Parts: sequence; structure tokens; C-alpha cells
Amino acid sequence: MTRQSRQMLIGLQLGNGYGSQPMSWRAPGVDPANYTSFDAQVRYAQAAERGKIQFFFLPDFAGLTSDVTNDSPQLTLEPLLTIAAAARATERIGFVATGSTTFTEPYNLARQFKTLDVMSHGRVGWNAVTTSDPNVAANYGAQIAPRPERYQRAHETIQIVQSLWGSWGEDAWLKDTETGRFADPDKIVPINLQGQHVASRGPLPIPPSEQGQPVIFSAGGGEYGLGLAGRYAGGVIGATFSIEDARAQRESIREAARAAGRDPDEVKFFAGVMPAIAPSVREAVDRRLRIGEYSLEKRLPYLGSMLGIPIEASRLDRPLTPEQLSAARPSPFDPRAPRALEVAREGWTVREILAHGVIDYHPTPVGPASVTADHMQEWFEAGAVDGFWVSVDVYEDGIDTFVDEVVPILQERGLFHTEYEGSTLRDHLGLPRQYGLDPRLH
Amino acid sequence: MTRQSRQMLIGLQLGNGYGSQPMSWRAPGVDPANYTSFDAQVRYAQAAERGKIQFFFLPDFAGLTSDVTNDSPQLTLEPLLTIAAAARATERIGFVATGSTTFTEPYNLARQFKTLDVMSHGRVGWNAVTTSDPNVAANYGAQIAPRPERYQRAHETIQIVQSLWGSWGEDAWLKDTETGRFADPDKIVPINLQGQHVASRGPLPIPPSEQGQPVIFSAGGGEYGLGLAGRYAGGVIGATFSIEDARAQRESIREAARAAGRDPDEVKFFAGVMPAIAPSVREAVDRRLRIGEYSLEKRLPYLGSMLGIPIEASRLDRPLTPEQLSAARPSPFDPRAPRALEVAREGWTVREILAHGVIDYHPTPVGPASVTADHMQEWFEAGAVDGFWVSVDVYEDGIDTFVDEVVPILQERGLFHTEYEGSTLRDHLGLPRQYGLDPRLH
Ligand SMILES: Cc1cc2nc3c(=O)[nH]c(=O)nc-3n(C[C@H](O)[C@H](O)[C@H](O)COP(=O)(O)O)c2cc1C
Ligand SMILES: Cc1cc2nc3c(=O)[nH]c(=O)nc-3n(C[C@H](O)[C@H](O)[C@H](O)COP(=O)(O)O)c2cc1C
Repeated sequence: MTRQSRQMLIGLQLGNGYGSQPMSWRAPGVDPANYTSFDAQVRYAQAAERGKIQFFFLPDFAGLTSDVTNDSPQLTLEPLLTIAAAARATERIGFVATGSTTFTEPYNLARQFKTLDVMSHGRVGWNAVTTSDPNVAANYGAQIAPRPERYQRAHETIQIVQSLWGSWGEDAWLKDTETGRFADPDKIVPINLQGQHVASRGPLPIPPSEQGQPVIFSAGGGEYGLGLAGRYAGGVIGATFSIEDARAQRESIREAARAAGRDPDEVKFFAGVMPAIAPSVREAVDRRLRIGEYSLEKRLPYLGSMLGIPIEASRLDRPLTPEQLSAARPSPFDPRAPRALEVAREGWTVREILAHGVIDYHPTPVGPASVTADHMQEWFEAGAVDGFWVSVDVYEDGIDTFVDEVVPILQERGLFHTEYEGSTLRDHLGLPRQYGLDPRLH
Repeated sequence: MTRQSRQMLIGLQLGNGYGSQPMSWRAPGVDPANYTSFDAQVRYAQAAERGKIQFFFLPDFAGLTSDVTNDSPQLTLEPLLTIAAAARATERIGFVATGSTTFTEPYNLARQFKTLDVMSHGRVGWNAVTTSDPNVAANYGAQIAPRPERYQRAHETIQIVQSLWGSWGEDAWLKDTETGRFADPDKIVPINLQGQHVASRGPLPIPPSEQGQPVIFSAGGGEYGLGLAGRYAGGVIGATFSIEDARAQRESIREAARAAGRDPDEVKFFAGVMPAIAPSVREAVDRRLRIGEYSLEKRLPYLGSMLGIPIEASRLDRPLTPEQLSAARPSPFDPRAPRALEVAREGWTVREILAHGVIDYHPTPVGPASVTADHMQEWFEAGAVDGFWVSVDVYEDGIDTFVDEVVPILQERGLFHTEYEGSTLRDHLGLPRQYGLDPRLH
């Protein structure tokens, strides 16, 4: 095994300017105006770069999909422009932005992502999603097409985008003031791709970045998702609650890459994690109680259904009764249920159980930084992941805490690099250079 | 008349990183790698801001429309991302980016332009063009539709974009940590616009910028173009070679605004100018000879047809003969012809005549800075323009020259402001705040 493969990779999630936890806009020390602050996003990126984090991951849904009465939308105003601001103020850290294969023209995707890649000197990735949310479709005057059609379009779009990226040959730009040759037109050629859903002639007049072209990421599994991941992805953003499931997801992605004719080590699988960090478990729970003060109780009914017992609102600040605990049966439909019951059995109040993140989108290690480091080490050493994407609860202090407390532990244990291996996102992820379509795909 | 209306407005054109003249990539002192350099674009923006220039104008065609063997494409890699980089490194100067109403989805236009407007604290404009170039259409797998259809789509697109901009109410964002109210959902409402060509439901979850929303610009005239300019534009980017024509264009735009129910002072008309500046006319011509060294002679046949006489290549470095001069008849089809003949009569060689910019896209005042200032003063005082968009030949030193030599003359003459009147593009242009659709339009 190379050094690269013995060490884990880390991405951080970047969203609305506050943090990944609900109500983080209201958390202590947070400027409630950060929803529109690019200075804040730049600060977060600089903090993460200090920790040698490989990349930021910016999810995206082109629409308002949540109630904003009491909480902020979870996303940046626009991911590409956010990256432009952050990339200009950093040197090494990578950025992966989500972009829809359904609702943006391939030429526009190709052009904006490659421009960002050039601007950042080769630090950009594109998380290509098909978009399954009807609220987003409505913003384009459209409806969500059946999955086969959306994925057909996704294949066409990614192939057109990569072909456009390759359409300005790697050595086409001569810029030779002596001979007066600006470029070699024989190496800048149309792609003339005509799919069923999208088409483009090209060429795209953008020279290669330091990594050639952006890295493709994908998110989401299933047969169709694996078809994309296996063929194109250098990274897959996953969601999973157990080592077994993560390992199975990772294996199926690697198998999909193999089936597409690629080396499975060229696609890295990232599991999500949402750490709650403080000097003690008690303080970590208190931190989450403070952040979630106004929203945790809304989740009470779901906790009840997850444990198979009714929980009255009046129990919010008391532990479950012995009767409730013995009647509880973790729901077989929710992989988070066993952990929820485990926490309940420790005697925490219902509100505190919720503050453990037991019904959050990703596993939540609670306590000192070492608890998060242990979680990451265990999953990594079990071969369940190539790395993690970490959603810190509140960016303002959470990124610093992760960088200053978790990262050094992982470094001491030899599990995380102490310096960037190179200058590009491909360097950081240990991915080969790629320019244009992958010629091995069949 | 207010102070605002007695002073001219100035925009600078921004393109490929080198300059607006052909072959500027090869000019002395220019880094031939600037095609991909965002540091260079930032430097240009900072230099222009020193001169209190109201805005940069970034033309755009989504495609490669020129031969790159010996010269660079004329455009930035991508205008919105270029602006993001430049806006983050400046405080006051505005930016107007061209974007196609035909080949970008309204929701994507609305989102990216408003995000940029928020990022720049209210300094952005959108030059809405319908796109008439089949090379661009081909990059989207499409053909250029007939003009009525393209303009119908443009109207729908601009209305959807402005409605989306207004869909997050001006005072909807409460961010009140005391009461826990993040936003007022009653003020964030869907737009539900369904056109013949485009549609969107909204809302767009982006709060107002310091100027509310971006300013709309348009470029190009004709009946259809005036329909857009009159209804939506705060600025019109023009191309014209005489005071009379400029005045006529400006009047028809003002009339179109009146007809749409607006105050004609709300749409500013900008004529192009491409100054050749040096301490003397001789040195200004020499500068242009150096920049255009490898390309001027290609224009010789056109010069002949413009003057109605054959000009042999062998005459390139000699003046026209007395016989040629007396036989010359300025073409009635090219408004630049009289000026070409005037220059020819001054006894310049054919190459030098061409170096006077006589067949460039805009008038070229040649000589010391005062010649350019005189040109601008004459047009402005004749009521032909509200201002100019200036294409400097080579950005690297040309912006400095314009800012350090032309601007002070205009300021001394009381024709140009000495400080920004405010902080937003609307402030700079003397335009009223606008949020959402203009309610006066009928
Ligand atoms: C961890 C993770 C993150 C995702 N992030 C996004 C996102 O930011 N934007 C988006 O539109 N979809 C996102 N998706 C959704 C998937 O791309 C996919 O659309 C979803 O799983 C629905 O599947 P389908 O498209 O196959 O119907 C994400 C999925 C996962 C598992
Ligand atoms: C000064 C000026 C600048 C223009 N800049 C652009 C531009 O950057 N991109 C573009 O696609 N069209 C540009 N146009 C073209 C017009 O928008 C318009 O498409 C053109 O005049 C053809 O007219 P039509 O669209 O009515 O057929 C410009 C026109 C003028 C006069």
C-alpha cells in the first residue's frame, strides 16, 4: 500500500454561512447576517486550509426547499461564485460544487467549472447530480422526468462536458511571442456530440488547469447512481450509518469502476460525519442543546416512532422511564435506531438524546475530539471508507475546533497527512491526471 | 440640470486579459499568459477604480468565434467568475456582464447575477443579449431562431429574472436572534410565471443587495432591441461613428423608454471609443503600429474598398498617391470612410492610416490624452451620449494611461466626477433603486 492509501481523506461540507445544524444562525458567536457574507465563507476556507483539509463540498438544490420562518436555507447563495471568492483567498484547499445535469446546459457547466478550475489553479471538482426534487424542477418550468431519462441525460451531459474540457488540446496554447503563434488550431477542435437530450459542437476555448480538468464527483447510490460513479467519479459523497453499510457501498462503487474498465482506487468513497465536539460528552451535549435550543423538540415524534414507543412532550426534560426503555424496539427501517436506544439507555433526557444527533443525516460522535477521531479511525481501518466529509455544527468555531483538535490526533496516529501532497485537487485525492473523456471507458 | 446629468459616465471594456486591440497579447510589456490570469483582471479593475470609472463592461459570446492561430479570443474565460474575482478585490467600481437570454435558463441567470450583486455589495449589471451568432447556438445543440422568437424569449426571460429578484421581499429577512424569526415567509413568494418559451415558479432565496437588484443593460438597436432597452435597460452599450448618429440612437432609446412609461433619464446611452494615447500623434500612431505589427496589413483590401480605390500591398509603407487621393470616394455604406480619407490626406503611409484605427469598431482619437478628452467632451456636450465605454488598446498600461491622463483632464473641465457618488452601480449611474419588476411598465 502506498502512503496515500493508508491515510484518510477529509472534506468539509460548506453551506449557508452558519453551520450544518438546524438553527445554527442563532448560535452564540454567530453573525446572523452570514447568509450573504462571502467574507465568512472565505474565513471558513482559510481555516480549513490551515488543517490541510483536502476539499470543501458544497451541496446544492436550485430552489427553496425549506421553511424559512425560523431557520435559514441550508445552502450557499450559489456554489460556483462562493468557490470563486474562496479560491481567490486560498492556495491549496480543493472545492467540490454540486451542479445539476438536468437543469444547466452542458456548455455552461463545462465553461464555468473549467474557468473555476483555471482560476483556482486546479482545485475544483463537480458533484454531478441529476436532481430529483420537484421544487427545483418547478423553478425551470419543468417536472422531474423518470429516473432512466434523467440518468441518460446525465451520461450525455457529463460526456459532453468532459469532451468540451478536452477540446482545447493540452498543448494547444503556444503563446509564443517570437513566432507570433498564439495557439495551434489543429489541437482545438469541435466535439460535435449529439445526444438524445443534449448536444454541443464546441470547442470550448479554455486551456487546461494545473490538474487538467475538474474532478467529477457523484452523490447517491442505486443502480443508476452507480452507473455514473463507476464511469466518471473520482469521489463519491455518501450517506451511511454503519461500517457494514459503508463497506458495502464502497465495494459496489469500486466494482462499478472495475466494470467500467477503471482502476477502483480511482474512485474515493466519503462517508458523512457530523461531530459534536467539546472537552467532555456532557459539554458536547450542552453545545448541541444550545445550538438546537429552538428546534430539537420538533423531532420528538420521530424519535418515538424510531424507538417504537410513544413519547409525550412532557418527557422532554426527563429520561425515558424503565417501562419505556424495556418496551422500546429499534425500528428496522431506520439504521439510526440502535444508536438512539443506546443513548437513551445511558439515562439522558429526551431532549439530550436528540442533542446526540441520533436522528441527524450522518453519524454524530459526541464528546472530546478523540471520540470523533476514534470514529473516523475505526471506519477507515475497517476498509469502509477512503475518507469522510465532515459537517461541522457551527462553522464559525466548529471548523477551528475540528482543525485544531481532531486533525492533530489523526495526524499523530498517522491517519491523516501533515502537508498537502501537491497543489491540485487530483494531487490531494491521489487521482491520476485526466483530460477530456476517459479513453478506457467502454 | 443636476450635477449628475452634467457629468459624463465612463465604462471600460474588459476582455481577454491583454487588450481590446488585435494582437495585444504580443504587445511589449504584456504577459502572454494573461488569457488565464485572474490576477491580471483584478489589477485592471483596481487601476480603473483608482480613476473612479463607473463600471467595467464584459462582452460575451459563448463560443470560439475567431481564428486563434495568431491571436487570442477577445473575451474573458467566463464573465461572471471574472467579476467575482475582481469584485472581491475592489470596493466601488461596477461590473456589467453580458449573458444570453436564449442559452441560459432564467433561474440560473437570476441566481448567479443576484448572488454576484450581493457579493459585490450592489455593483453588478446584466447586459441581456439575445445571441445571434450560429457558432454560439451550435454549442447548445441549437440554431438561431428568427428574431421575433428570440426577442419574445428575451422579454419573458428578463421578466422572470426580475420577478425572481423581487421574490424575496426587500424586508423579508428578519434575522432576529431574539425572537428567532429568520425570515417572514409571507414576503418570500413564488412568482409562477409561465411564458411561451420559459417559465419559473420561484421564489429565489436571495435577499436584496445594497442596490436592490442588478441593473439591466442592453446592446444593439433596431426595433426589437429598442423594445428591450426602453422597457428594462438602465444602460445601453452602443456602437456609433458620428455625433449625429449617436444623438439619434440616444433619442430613439429615450423615446422607447418614454413609450414604455419610464423616465428617459433612467436609461443611459454609452458610445464606444478606442483611444490611441501617447504624448504626440506620431507616438500614438507608433504605439498602434507596434501593437498591430502583425495584423494591420490584413485590413488593406477593406481600406481600399472603403475609399473606393484599389490599394496595392506595395503601398503599405508609402502614402497614397495624389491620383489615388483625388480618385478616392468615401463609401456611403461605411460611416468610418470620411475619417479614413481625412487621415489619408494628412500624408500618412497606408500602414499608418490603418494604425489610426480608421476601420476599428469605434472612433479612435489619436494623440495626447487631450485629444481623447476633446472627443468625449464634444460628443457629450452635443447631447449625443450620457457617457462612453472605452476600449483601451492594451490593458496593462492602457488603463493606467487613461486613468492618469484622460480622467484628470475631464475632471478639470468639470466633465467627470472626482469621487464616486455612492457605493452601488445604481448610485454611480444615477439610477433609481428597483426591486422586482418595474410596476410602471405597460
Ligand atoms: C450524501 C448525498 C448528498 C447529495 N447531495 C445532493 C445535492 O447537493 N444536490 C442534489 O440535487 N442532490 C443531491 N443528492 C441526491 C442524489 O444526487 C440523488 O438525486 C438522490 O439520491 C435521488 O436519487 P435519484 O436521482 O436516483 O432519483 C445527494 C445524495 C446523497 C446521498
Ligand atoms: C456595442 C454592442 C455590443 C454587443 N455586445 C454583445 C455581446 O457581448 N454578446 C452578444 O451576444 N451580443 C452582443 N451584441 C449584439 C446584440 O446584442 C445583437 O444580438 C446584435 O446587434 C444582433 O441583433 P439581433 O439579435 O437583433 O439579430 C452587441 C451589440 C452591440 C451594438
